Amino acid sequence: MSSDRPIAVVLLSGGMDSCVTAALAARDHRLALLHSSYGQLTEARERRAFEEIAEHFQAPFRLRIEQRYMTRIGGSALTDPSIAVPEANLVAAEAGQIPITYVPFRNAHFLSAAVSWAEVLGARRIYVGAVEQDSSGYPDCRSQYYRAFNEVIRLGTRPETSIEICAPLIEMSKAGIIRRGIELGAPFPLTWSCYRESEAACGTCDSCALRLRAFAQAGAADPIPYLKTLTPA
Amino acid sequence: MSSDRPIAVVLLSGGMDSCVTAALAARDHRLALLHSSYGQLTEARERRAFEEIAEHFQAPFRLRIEQRYMTRIGGSALTDPSIAVPEANLVAAEAGQIPITYVPFRNAHFLSAAVSWAEVLGARRIYVGAVEQDSSGYPDCRSQYYRAFNEVIRLGTRPETSIEICAPLIEMSKAGIIRRGIELGAPFPLTWSCYRESEAACGTCDSCALRLRAFAQAGAADPIPYLKTLTPA
Repeated sequence: MSSDRPIAVVLLSGGMDSCVTAALAARDHRLALLHSSYGQLTEARERRAFEEIAEHFQAPFRLRIEQRYMTRIGGSALTDPSIAVPEANLVAAEAGQIPITYVPFRNAHFLSAAVSWAEVLGARRIYVGAVEQDSSGYPDCRSQYYRAFNEVIRLGTRPETSIEICAPLIEMSKAGIIRRGIELGAPFPLTWSCYRESEAACGTCDSCALRLRAFAQAGAADPIPYLKTLTPA
Repeated sequence: MSSDRPIAVVLLSGGMDSCVTAALAARDHRLALLHSSYGQLTEARERRAFEEIAEHFQAPFRLRIEQRYMTRIGGSALTDPSIAVPEANLVAAEAGQIPITYVPFRNAHFLSAAVSWAEVLGARRIYVGAVEQDSSGYPDCRSQYYRAFNEVIRLGTRPETSIEICAPLIEMSKAGIIRRGIELGAPFPLTWSCYRESEAACGTCDSCALRLRAFAQAGAADPIPYLKTLTPA
């Protein structure tokens, strides 16, 4: 791990997309891995995934932050326990409907922390595992959103900095992400995607359904345990 | 306080600029006041200013959030106790030098919370008391930064929302802000601007120096106590 390689900040939730993103960034960067506990239902399980993936990559910089005020803002099934996480509805997601698991403007909270940390570390790249197509339909997972955010970074940081968001998966299919992850040796057994459960994944929320369909399409076995699995579409 | 007036989220640090901004917003909005404790040295004093100003305006919505992870990111005299808050240097600020009190990309953290909250409340306006001219030279206090952030909001929230940042003071002089605040009856005795102290303001940090100069230029007396005051330039 040469110390003259540049540093990349990677937003690592602990899910499969962010894990493959870390594997991509690790090819030519020292990793600065950032995780947020924002009151999501599966907070502890996600944090364990983060720790184990960070160990896997021997990341020299790691930052776990708490943004639990998001539970007091609410407005999402992920942060408000009184709103149930619905059963998967990939048809609605593909029709552009924004599901109730959307956390209002969530990714800006993570990106803001990533930019502040990048400015202090002297990192010039922030990697995010956002996926636009073939995904949940969240507005803050689209490439135009990240282009606009890059402009905010350019204007809102010291003039001598040069920090840019990279979203290398943004145009990939979920199946393509799995194939790329397998090529790179991404540690899928350490990842966690389920919105609901922490021992075995529920298998039936949007996030599980997208993941299971992707593994099926990629012709690979998902190595994590599930309570039940729908027949992939 | 009619309940059919629209809601405005106001970022209220407790300083003079955000207090005047709240007074402006209060003319035709119900106030949703947002304060962040981000580990700033004068955290408790600022929060008291927030509470007292919120009471003054009888704000129907109030949210105090903790973003203390910013102390672990550091990089600023405001959030890292090992970096001293320097004596005022308004000449350097006017020459465009960014002072060590700049907290990397700070305002994006506050704005992100404001946008999430606005989306949940159904508010269409976010008021911020940023001042571009005659101020500290922070890159995230410039009008072009807020224009770019508005684009991020447009792209990163539900399509049916319409949330915009207003920065009504951005082109005003600090003295002009005080005159406007006096016209509006803004409660200056409740405000706190000092970066260092919490009983009496130090009078010699950048923030105190800008404030004292502004009151002198406006021909008004600053109603808060000071330990000492430099002769205004």
